[in-house]
Amino acid sequence: MSVFCYSNNQIQAIESAGVPVTDLLVQRGYGIFDFLRVAKEKPLFIDAHLDRFFNSAEIMRLNIPQTREDIKNIVAELIEKNKMPYSGIRMIIAGGDAPDGYTIEHPHLIIIQASLAEPTLKLPTTGIKLATYNYQRQIPEVKTTDYLMAVWLQPWMKQQGADDILYHHNGIISECPRSNFFLVTKENVLVTANSNMLNGITRKNIITVCKANNIQLEIRDLDLSEIKEAKEAFITSSTKRIIPVHQIDDVILKPNYAESLASNIYDLLVALEN
Amino acid sequence: MSVFCYSNNQIQAIESAGVPVTDLLVQRGYGIFDFLRVAKEKPLFIDAHLDRFFNSAEIMRLNIPQTREDIKNIVAELIEKNKMPYSGIRMIIAGGDAPDGYTIEHPHLIIIQASLAEPTLKLPTTGIKLATYNYQRQIPEVKTTDYLMAVWLQPWMKQQGADDILYHHNGIISECPRSNFFLVTKENVLVTANSNMLNGITRKNIITVCKANNIQLEIRDLDLSEIKEAKEAFITSSTKRIIPVHQIDDVILKPNYAESLASNIYDLLVALEN
Repeated sequence: MSVFCYSNNQIQAIESAGVPVTDLLVQRGYGIFDFLRVAKEKPLFIDAHLDRFFNSAEIMRLNIPQTREDIKNIVAELIEKNKMPYSGIRMIIAGGDAPDGYTIEHPHLIIIQASLAEPTLKLPTTGIKLATYNYQRQIPEVKTTDYLMAVWLQPWMKQQGADDILYHHNGIISECPRSNFFLVTKENVLVTANSNMLNGITRKNIITVCKANNIQLEIRDLDLSEIKEAKEAFITSSTKRIIPVHQIDDVILKPNYAESLASNIYDLLVALEN
Repeated sequence: MSVFCYSNNQIQAIESAGVPVTDLLVQRGYGIFDFLRVAKEKPLFIDAHLDRFFNSAEIMRLNIPQTREDIKNIVAELIEKNKMPYSGIRMIIAGGDAPDGYTIEHPHLIIIQASLAEPTLKLPTTGIKLATYNYQRQIPEVKTTDYLMAVWLQPWMKQQGADDILYHHNGIISECPRSNFFLVTKENVLVTANSNMLNGITRKNIITVCKANNIQLEIRDLDLSEIKEAKEAFITSSTKRIIPVHQIDDVILKPNYAESLASNIYDLLVALEN
């Protein structure tokens, strides 16, 4: 059975959907996207994702004719047609055809759905290793399609024996390529970066549950040197909620996962989805 | 009549050629390209362009099954089929489908041809204005498809009354988004940047003709502060050969174009094409 996507202003089989070779997305890497998780046929936190998506579009001047309601309807139709109760939805705005190869004239919407394993009900108890890398994403507040560095660094990351990359700029931690980063200090204070990174929807949800549950949270510049003194660290994304981190470069963290702050917040995130 | 391109391992009509919505080029902006000019049905400096194209591909791990000879044959076939004696050829390597959304497995070649006005036989005698901008392209020695910043900055550039952007990084000049930059000092020495920019083929040709004609050339770091003292400035590209610059930010340059070093080098470049 064919998987359906939305492209060229219509629902169509994904195999037949292509971005024109003359598109700004293909020739100039000019596009944005957003990605949300579907659980039990429900697109999770779709309003927050659409807020961010339209904000990215505005900053990049990628105006499309579809409204928020149009997009919600297309997403609902795809979920129904594709029969994928647990999945990921990727909404892309491509720069579109530019006769002069440079000017944005006809941005267009693409929506893809792909099945996705549902994250576990409890926090995973095996952490991952991060390797730090000095790099600043361009236009970091926008979810652009620019993952040139992230994809390029994959072999380097594997050489480090790492599972993901932690970007910092001259020692100030920003984010991982597809996740936000959180650290728990010895004093049990949760800390996450303040600027030069993407405002993740799971990060936003964590801020919400911390406020509601009196969990001490600081949103501020986070220095690489603070890793050595950390009690816990974890990364967050819409796909995985939270993944604990057991090592960053040479620093090994040994939290008791079951009793960690990450585990506590994970349960609150699960509850928030229902 | 349809314009032909090369995509999906075949010559086909450009309207029917699309990059899959699941391609790394579409989802992660992962791709490289090269662009060369065709004059009188001859692809100019194609060996130099292919050297750079295969070097970009190697650095980005975008290996394709086509050889240099294969590509030359496809280019020749397109030139013959499209009947465009004066045109531009764009060769792209797209990252290809990645089942995990990240790993390079099936890069593929796309070649597009579009008609292009032939540059004038003599140097244009109206210069353009450049606006300087602090930015460093990522992986600058590779001609990636990442022009996110260049396209995004177009309205800013127009606000400055400028025709193009001159990138510098903390005061050290690198390049324009699609051109190399040259400056002529009061002592009549030609200077161009040394690092953190793309090795343009026209820049390479200028180095060649300078050596052959005893024109003094320095390839070194070039500071923004040197603009004030400059006698001439110009930008170079495969499309236009040389475009003189009459203003950079607030600094106005008033060369006698007809007797300028740019004009002298322009004539040498025209001769090199024959």
